[in-house]
Amino acid sequence: MTSEVRPDQATLPLPPMRWNGWGDPALAKPLPADIRDLLAAAFGVTPSEEPELAAAEVVLTPSALTAADRDHLAAIVGAEHVGTADTDRLLRAGGKSTPDLLRRRSRAEQDAPDAVVLPGSEEEIAALLALCAERRIAVVPFGGGTSVVGGLDPVRAGFTAVISLDLRRLDALHSLDETSGEAVLGAGLTGPRAEELLAERGWELGHYPQSFRYATIGGFAATRSSGQDSAGHGRFDDMVRGLRVVTPTGTVDLGRAPASAAGPDLRQLFLGSEGTLGVITAVRLRVHPLPAVKAYEAWSFPDFATGAAALRAVEQQQTGPTVIRLSDEAETAVNLAMTDKIGGSTVTGGCLAVTVFEGTAEQVAAGHERTRAVLLAAGATSLGEEPARAWEHGRFNAPYLRDSLLDAGALCETLETATDWARLGELKAGVTAALTDALRATGTESMVMCHISHVYPTGASLYFTVVAAEKGDPAEQWAGVKRAACDAIMAGGGTISHHHAVGTDHRPWMEQEIGEVGVRILRAVKDTVDPAGILNPGKLIP
Amino acid sequence: MTSEVRPDQATLPLPPMRWNGWGDPALAKPLPADIRDLLAAAFGVTPSEEPELAAAEVVLTPSALTAADRDHLAAIVGAEHVGTADTDRLLRAGGKSTPDLLRRRSRAEQDAPDAVVLPGSEEEIAALLALCAERRIAVVPFGGGTSVVGGLDPVRAGFTAVISLDLRRLDALHSLDETSGEAVLGAGLTGPRAEELLAERGWELGHYPQSFRYATIGGFAATRSSGQDSAGHGRFDDMVRGLRVVTPTGTVDLGRAPASAAGPDLRQLFLGSEGTLGVITAVRLRVHPLPAVKAYEAWSFPDFATGAAALRAVEQQQTGPTVIRLSDEAETAVNLAMTDKIGGSTVTGGCLAVTVFEGTAEQVAAGHERTRAVLLAAGATSLGEEPARAWEHGRFNAPYLRDSLLDAGALCETLETATDWARLGELKAGVTAALTDALRATGTESMVMCHISHVYPTGASLYFTVVAAEKGDPAEQWAGVKRAACDAIMAGGGTISHHHAVGTDHRPWMEQEIGEVGVRILRAVKDTVDPAGILNPGKLIP
Repeated sequence: MTSEVRPDQATLPLPPMRWNGWGDPALAKPLPADIRDLLAAAFGVTPSEEPELAAAEVVLTPSALTAADRDHLAAIVGAEHVGTADTDRLLRAGGKSTPDLLRRRSRAEQDAPDAVVLPGSEEEIAALLALCAERRIAVVPFGGGTSVVGGLDPVRAGFTAVISLDLRRLDALHSLDETSGEAVLGAGLTGPRAEELLAERGWELGHYPQSFRYATIGGFAATRSSGQDSAGHGRFDDMVRGLRVVTPTGTVDLGRAPASAAGPDLRQLFLGSEGTLGVITAVRLRVHPLPAVKAYEAWSFPDFATGAAALRAVEQQQTGPTVIRLSDEAETAVNLAMTDKIGGSTVTGGCLAVTVFEGTAEQVAAGHERTRAVLLAAGATSLGEEPARAWEHGRFNAPYLRDSLLDAGALCETLETATDWARLGELKAGVTAALTDALRATGTESMVMCHISHVYPTGASLYFTVVAAEKGDPAEQWAGVKRAACDAIMAGGGTISHHHAVGTDHRPWMEQEIGEVGVRILRAVKDTVDPAGILNPGKLIP
Repeated sequence: MTSEVRPDQATLPLPPMRWNGWGDPALAKPLPADIRDLLAAAFGVTPSEEPELAAAEVVLTPSALTAADRDHLAAIVGAEHVGTADTDRLLRAGGKSTPDLLRRRSRAEQDAPDAVVLPGSEEEIAALLALCAERRIAVVPFGGGTSVVGGLDPVRAGFTAVISLDLRRLDALHSLDETSGEAVLGAGLTGPRAEELLAERGWELGHYPQSFRYATIGGFAATRSSGQDSAGHGRFDDMVRGLRVVTPTGTVDLGRAPASAAGPDLRQLFLGSEGTLGVITAVRLRVHPLPAVKAYEAWSFPDFATGAAALRAVEQQQTGPTVIRLSDEAETAVNLAMTDKIGGSTVTGGCLAVTVFEGTAEQVAAGHERTRAVLLAAGATSLGEEPARAWEHGRFNAPYLRDSLLDAGALCETLETATDWARLGELKAGVTAALTDALRATGTESMVMCHISHVYPTGASLYFTVVAAEKGDPAEQWAGVKRAACDAIMAGGGTISHHHAVGTDHRPWMEQEIGEVGVRILRAVKDTVDPAGILNPGKLIP
């Protein structure tokens, strides 16, 4: 259905994902008939009659890189590691947000980096940054290409060209310290490859965000990623013991100890820096032995508030699940938590929750029992292990569903935030109302679904999935709806992003997030490490 | 024995601690006879024959504050909240490190802040900072006055005067959110007062560093403090959900959510900023219900390596102690872990470890049982609960012991670091050798004792206590020994401070700690928020 680019048109190894959608084309699934019927009945959605754009039909802005600069780049990394073919460039033209995918469908000229460069070492990266600073070439670090916040947009204002710095060659497991439980992993390692290298030695990182199959260690660090096992293993930033970053003014190696009182924790400046302060090359991470045992149990709650209070009790009492998540009534009703069974028969009314436990047999048994007791006391009904296993089976597949919805002519996107437990219900209501009202103002009813997937002693995340009909230019339509949702997040006391990061899409809300002084601090740090401003311009820092 | 200052000589409320030693004079204890004998026999230490300096005999540098500037300060906070009396100034002249206490004994002119100012609100602090920037007056934020790294030194180079900004009036429990488990506490609240206000409502913060009785919430945040219950409740920086900071260029309010991917975590810049980037006024902290039950058990290990491996197993398996600590053979031999029984009969040979468990009856029983199993399997012998209770009873009293040792004519000081588990033994040996060799070079044998008091999945802290004879000028003697120890810490891969912070004393090692780029970043942030450089000059940032 989708025209894939032909590998023989590329001069470099390509990112493994579809050029105009998520993931592996072989895994794409057409929408189930009853979902299509629902879309038609509820929102009047019908598939577009326009033929889909083929990759070969895409018109890219011509590469602005001069032959001289191409030669300079090649002199540093080798000619075989510089690509300017349209296919090389198209595959690094952006991330995978709905606006990104809508942009890929455009018959107008599409912007893309002018070249793709694959460095093989920190020395090469340092030399590239020096060259780019001198030649005023912008540099967009590229990991798995899974950004959903415009983090990869080739912003070129004020620059002679923009290159995509694809870090895939930094793919080593540098070291594993089995005593301390630490591994140093190359920034270009994908989630699966990192876990494979660790598993060969009996270890696991345990970071499983939805982007796991494609995203990289460097990307996880640069975006403060949070994985689905965060209840057990923490966010990615919790796992980081140290990191190495090449900046245009020198290399940084931070993290001398598990914890320190030696001044501000500068690791926390580079975590979440989204390529604007330096190129993360290697990350020292806490790892743990592969779990011996896993246990699963799914639950039903009569309503979201009861379920949220139950998750809060589990987290505040630290009973020990590795995964704990709760779908609201709307998400439960369409079975969204079990992506591969979407639209199939639901296993419960009310709200579905999923728990997974990992560790030694003893740890799993004890954690499971403690968690059970708390959940049952808080109003849960057990649904047995099958729905939890089904959730896990489809845990990385939701983005395929979005592709199918877009293909079917629906507007579909996700967004997320986090706040304290006391404000969670109000924030959820506020964001839901903002989405619903803003979409209605564009002429469509909508379906807003929500889940909690990350819990903390003091609060939790909220992840929204929105489906509606496209009205007018869907990119413009969504831009307005997204603005309304972001304003509602800020008004409700949430963070503008719990785990998707800032990129270009959330940048307008950063001053509200960190204040005017905070923005000045980020700019000062940026000016210090990247005085020419070449690193991922237009992202993160207002 | 020690001449205390007379309160009627002060114009402001005074810090509660002795002017020339730790804590409450009523709690000071002369050294047990056998320790005195040991000091004499091992190191030839004899009490000084010089009479101790009385507070009234101290000659302070005259206050450099002009009458006009005093009036300006008084116009902001009220005349009753500005003090320039020698007693006011002497009590804020420095912290409580051994070099500080040696300095207090000097008959030469002693430096002190030119005035003490007690602001009552953020607005007053902002106005004070604006005035001080204009008048080029340096500002040293003052909490409990417990710094042991020279964090309070009145560095005046380049300034017309220096004031101590005593934050004791910021002493409110601003709010308690029992759903989210969060409290907003004023920066000037001492540890005991904060716990008292929370306990009235059934809650606890659970941060118990050795400085607990005097240090403040703002100080804990500014120094990245770590409490003795860190295994259960985390370091202070782990507890911080948000904080408010008044900088000379605007007020910062950080922390919109329990966790966020909205760029770098700027809270982590102000945590550990030691008064150089702003004045922390209030901290939003994670709190928990008061524990229903506590359990205690002490342990004996044949040697330090076996004990350390056992602590590592407990922490990596997350079996759940609130406190876990291990004394080495030397510390165990003098019973130092039970401060109030120092020199008394020891309860074990080898190495003493202490565990404490807190929570609900069920949590305590389960955590205790799991921890027991791991420790016993790792080579521990139970010593029952009494030694652990004795440790807790004396947990805040070790600094009194140092005072007594100094009074007895011995040189005594502590220092600390942290590293990964794999390097812990080597780092301990390296620092011990550096201390022993450096002291020997000054002409004295020494006793170097060590304990682990903070554990992490990937590593642990090392806390050293050193006793030797004074040789020559003890301040100069210690300065050389401290340099050797710090160099050994850096050579061994440790951090220059795990929980004492940087101040003036560790500043020479900061470039090694965070690198040249890291130093430039700190300077840039400093220049951005404090362009006049008035905030705590000479501390932290090289």
